[in-house]
Amino acid sequence: MPRVPEGFARIRLLAAGICSTDLELQRGYYGFSGTPGHEFVGEVTEAADSRWIGARVAGEINLACGTCTWCKHGLGRHCPTRTVLGIVKHPGAFREFLTLPIRNLHRVPASIPTEHAVFIEPIAAACEILDQVKIPKGERVAVLGDGKLGLLVAQVLQAKGAKVHLFGRHRNKMRLVEPTGVTTEIVPKKLPFAAWPFVVDATGSSEGLKAAVSMCIPRGTVIMKSTVHGLVSIDTAPAIVNEITLIGSRCGRFEAALPLLSSGKVNVGSMISEEFPLDRAPEAFATAAKKGVLKVLLRP
Amino acid sequence: MPRVPEGFARIRLLAAGICSTDLELQRGYYGFSGTPGHEFVGEVTEAADSRWIGARVAGEINLACGTCTWCKHGLGRHCPTRTVLGIVKHPGAFREFLTLPIRNLHRVPASIPTEHAVFIEPIAAACEILDQVKIPKGERVAVLGDGKLGLLVAQVLQAKGAKVHLFGRHRNKMRLVEPTGVTTEIVPKKLPFAAWPFVVDATGSSEGLKAAVSMCIPRGTVIMKSTVHGLVSIDTAPAIVNEITLIGSRCGRFEAALPLLSSGKVNVGSMISEEFPLDRAPEAFATAAKKGVLKVLLRP
Repeated sequence: MPRVPEGFARIRLLAAGICSTDLELQRGYYGFSGTPGHEFVGEVTEAADSRWIGARVAGEINLACGTCTWCKHGLGRHCPTRTVLGIVKHPGAFREFLTLPIRNLHRVPASIPTEHAVFIEPIAAACEILDQVKIPKGERVAVLGDGKLGLLVAQVLQAKGAKVHLFGRHRNKMRLVEPTGVTTEIVPKKLPFAAWPFVVDATGSSEGLKAAVSMCIPRGTVIMKSTVHGLVSIDTAPAIVNEITLIGSRCGRFEAALPLLSSGKVNVGSMISEEFPLDRAPEAFATAAKKGVLKVLLRP
Repeated sequence: MPRVPEGFARIRLLAAGICSTDLELQRGYYGFSGTPGHEFVGEVTEAADSRWIGARVAGEINLACGTCTWCKHGLGRHCPTRTVLGIVKHPGAFREFLTLPIRNLHRVPASIPTEHAVFIEPIAAACEILDQVKIPKGERVAVLGDGKLGLLVAQVLQAKGAKVHLFGRHRNKMRLVEPTGVTTEIVPKKLPFAAWPFVVDATGSSEGLKAAVSMCIPRGTVIMKSTVHGLVSIDTAPAIVNEITLIGSRCGRFEAALPLLSSGKVNVGSMISEEFPLDRAPEAFATAAKKGVLKVLLRP
């Protein structure tokens, strides 16, 4: 049973999601040890402010100092002394009870089922793109990759007014987002060259960035959503000659994600592949790592 | 004696500069064959509009179609069917006579000596950064690389109000830009981490981009000015985790460069290492390729 520091809440897990980052951590990347897990919904069981007790919550994953320049500008996600739930020096959500600062918590509206609310964190990560880049309404956006994040990014950008074209390798995965209006296409042998003003690399592959740069029009924007471990080789010459802007994009604000999930414009239910109890977590991880599997949930 | 197509001028060379790109072309990169040379000043000897005859001119290097969407938006530098003086399918300036469309020409004011005016093209390339990125007055900018382009970028950004810190390997080169107010530093063993809101990579080295990303603060901007031939390995994770923006930057508008050169705020005279007559061009190229040498000029 974890200790509850001042300003923190103790949260009983209701459901958690396995993310590709968790699989990377398990492989030993980033030198992580401890309990992973950063996509979760839980119920507050202890907090100094009793109004939180019993609340069903999701939680922002960056534990920021709250006082540095970054924090003062609302960018605690970049606080240099931050810890990160289940990623950097703060035990994660794949256990019965976890702790987070109360200021990280967001109440989940009753309209959102628990298993859908697990997607708030990755939807926020998709929304982050729109906090960084102005994509005009009706603008054409190519999304590369039909993994979990690619499917969410495609749906979020489409819901926010872009005309999204998703390139992937799995007809069955891409079919899930077609009802939202996203156009889908199996990656062709020869990708279209200099064809898209915005390209999102969500391939999770070291080849994705090169493809994204090549598909982007001169003066266009490539959004980098794939944290690939290790070095990625890119030919910088086309990026420079075509004066392309590449933008690294990570976690986002939950405030942006909650209304999208409530609205039903982002279809997450069909993205749940399987559920496991917490005590079968190793099996759940093995399943999540399989080709063709989307979101795997853990329940206490 | 080159033919003069409609809308073109014939120009007698007065002076030309050897750029690192010329050295790359000579090494066989980009599959170039023919006459290189794209930094020049010349005198118009033939043009349909007689007002140009006798004018001392510099010339924009991209020969654009003038009718496509890019050209209509003033971005002929990105016209997909363009040729480029001395780089892509248009014979360059390292010869007695060259041709360019009249719309590419800019009269050189009498106040600018010919050997200084050779720098208009690379100064325009430095100015391009400010057409792409808004750098607030007084903002700190790190420039990596004390080659020809690095020295010009440092001076241009300083002249335009930034506080520039130049990192290089050659005390004698960096000394040239100190009178303009640029702070200089020999590259330390351990580069400062996450310290600069703007970092320009003008190293011309495949290591430069990685260093630039690591020196940039979260949500900061890295400007890529080094066209390195071949693949560059970067660790994209820090760029994504810190949500850094990388911007490819190439040629710029001569209109921005001319007043800077007139103003004397960019010191180019001291950057001229040697001059050679055109018929000793091979020797000039060999000299330009030597370590420690800055601009080498060719004269007819």
